[in-house]
Amino acid sequence: MINFTHYLPTRFVFGRGVENQTGELVRALGATKVLIHYGGGSAVRSGLIARVEASLDAAGVKHVSLGGAQPNPRDTKVYEGIELIRREKVDFVLAVGGGSAIDSAKAMAHGALYEGDFWDFFCGKAKPEKSLPKGVVLTMSAAGSESSDSCVITQAATKTKRGLNTELNRPLLAIMNPELTMTLPPYQIACGATDILAHIMERYFSNEPDCDLTDRLCEGTMQAVIRAARVMVKTPTDYDAASQLMWASTIAHNDTLSVGRVKDFASHQIEHELSALYDCAHGAGLAVVFPGWLRFMLKKPEKVMRLAQFAVRVWGCEMDFEHPEKTAALGIDAYVSWLKSIRMPVTFAELGAREEDIPYLAKKVKRPNPDGTVGKFYALNTEEIEEIYRLCL
Amino acid sequence: MINFTHYLPTRFVFGRGVENQTGELVRALGATKVLIHYGGGSAVRSGLIARVEASLDAAGVKHVSLGGAQPNPRDTKVYEGIELIRREKVDFVLAVGGGSAIDSAKAMAHGALYEGDFWDFFCGKAKPEKSLPKGVVLTMSAAGSESSDSCVITQAATKTKRGLNTELNRPLLAIMNPELTMTLPPYQIACGATDILAHIMERYFSNEPDCDLTDRLCEGTMQAVIRAARVMVKTPTDYDAASQLMWASTIAHNDTLSVGRVKDFASHQIEHELSALYDCAHGAGLAVVFPGWLRFMLKKPEKVMRLAQFAVRVWGCEMDFEHPEKTAALGIDAYVSWLKSIRMPVTFAELGAREEDIPYLAKKVKRPNPDGTVGKFYALNTEEIEEIYRLCL
Repeated sequence: MINFTHYLPTRFVFGRGVENQTGELVRALGATKVLIHYGGGSAVRSGLIARVEASLDAAGVKHVSLGGAQPNPRDTKVYEGIELIRREKVDFVLAVGGGSAIDSAKAMAHGALYEGDFWDFFCGKAKPEKSLPKGVVLTMSAAGSESSDSCVITQAATKTKRGLNTELNRPLLAIMNPELTMTLPPYQIACGATDILAHIMERYFSNEPDCDLTDRLCEGTMQAVIRAARVMVKTPTDYDAASQLMWASTIAHNDTLSVGRVKDFASHQIEHELSALYDCAHGAGLAVVFPGWLRFMLKKPEKVMRLAQFAVRVWGCEMDFEHPEKTAALGIDAYVSWLKSIRMPVTFAELGAREEDIPYLAKKVKRPNPDGTVGKFYALNTEEIEEIYRLCL
Repeated sequence: MINFTHYLPTRFVFGRGVENQTGELVRALGATKVLIHYGGGSAVRSGLIARVEASLDAAGVKHVSLGGAQPNPRDTKVYEGIELIRREKVDFVLAVGGGSAIDSAKAMAHGALYEGDFWDFFCGKAKPEKSLPKGVVLTMSAAGSESSDSCVITQAATKTKRGLNTELNRPLLAIMNPELTMTLPPYQIACGATDILAHIMERYFSNEPDCDLTDRLCEGTMQAVIRAARVMVKTPTDYDAASQLMWASTIAHNDTLSVGRVKDFASHQIEHELSALYDCAHGAGLAVVFPGWLRFMLKKPEKVMRLAQFAVRVWGCEMDFEHPEKTAALGIDAYVSWLKSIRMPVTFAELGAREEDIPYLAKKVKRPNPDGTVGKFYALNTEEIEEIYRLCL
């Protein structure tokens, strides 16, 4: 294990009906005027926004609303929110929705207290030093943004998708009613489950030795996600499966499962360019990219045992002690079979992505390592990223 | 999953050398004068107290010290601490040690701000409403008190051991250097590992259905503890094993592993009377009690499948689908073998406990259920508690 600091300021309030506590919970955090930021009309039509507003009213907390958060949330909406926060003297930002609404709300909360352009934080020109307090009423199990330190925004004009990691990104409050996720289309549920599993895999594929506990926490959560996703895609109203997916989404991305080790996150960077260019769902993009990344790693002899452990402990494959690479390959097959079973795309074509774009995509991938590569488990250069994209064809 | 709230205000700073950051970390929490509370002379002799004091000095934070926290910490020391805190106008309590020093410090922090007798909180006469902020420099992986909501104190005059659960018990800071646990005698390391496993078992044996994720988090952590304990009892200087035991001790008892389910904690109550009467180590008492509790549950047909799951998933036993009770029994055997392998006592006699005390012990066990029983997985009455004690002979 490497040295680490772990601090989660988020208060999680989880279960049936908890959205009706929003007012008192937000007031306890000192809020006097809340910006409710949500996505499409479904939160309005389902009556959720009205319930949240009623709860705020009952607690005597004022509020204004801003809808229209989109998947792959845009900088344009963030600018709109920042202006509204300043004009209305908002002191608490409440996202009602999934990762898109939450990330959009996070960027607004940082930007509202910054004199310059909030995009400075995403292009690396500045670091946020303060932010408005944030809360979430979660409606989708996926991004884990309800307590993660990350936020991803797309610059609409350039189709550039960039992430920001800072402790200021962690909301102080996560109101989590699994019932709210039951009305999502199965495709979105599956995209969410794919994202959850990917967040864990980004932590699981790591070179730090002897992290047995961290390994087992990852493996156990992956097994639970695999099972709950299969159930929920068939039966979205299964409360227990919904609960497990929802809590898994949270711990998958708030570092509960990754203390003492370095995260990889190459696959996320490689995916970001797909959803930025083709505007596909992030989960769907990951379903295409991650098998390619695994197939690439299978060719590296020093990575085989890690892939075999993934196959045996997560997918229940039998260990072939003479040919561990066969076991490793079986694990990749099992992962792809699971993706197909929850009806995710697993090829470029299914995603609407095009082979001829690969050089452009590979060049655009953010490569944050000092030597211009991306990934910690294995540091990828541009040619290798191209190779991974080709393994996704 | 049942509804839950989860909030962990503790900032964990983990790894080699982190105790040298104590001063700046404590100052960042607003401390101006710290009470350092520790146990025996080992923390002084090892130079740890001097390093902590030097770090406080460097950060310009004043401090006073109080040693003498004992295993099964006494009310007498708590009264002493409360007086010192008031006299010296201390505004932050820093425990340096394991569960005993931490629990003692927690009780002091509550009592210092209470006009009545702090024991009121432990005998159920009053509830604490405020407390001084607390921090921990951890030297033992065991009780998990560094971020748990619990605190156990023994009234010396009556040998009555009582626990208090409140959110106010959670420290704001946990400074965790696994190296500090490497100088403990193997017996204490083993007692700690037994306690960690017991904390997880109290959460794992639960009747809430369909908590697959929580189950798997518990199972994975138990597997890591079983392995790390075997390594560390033989080789106390194994940093990775020490790291895993230390982090496991924390998550085993801060509810990371038990969201959405009800904890049992009958075995802890049954053990408390052993350590109160015979002054044995808490972990050693648990090593005797928990196998007895499991043997009792093995006789209840409705509990067999849960025990079989424990046997298969935690201990690697093969499932006997025709006779699951045989698998369940193998799991208990495996648990007892593990306890013996780390040289824990597993019988009353080895603990110095006496058969003739059983009726007295059984009568004294705290039974917090409204109907005068103890335990949630299975509610035990006095006769059944006696039966469990007899199964420990």
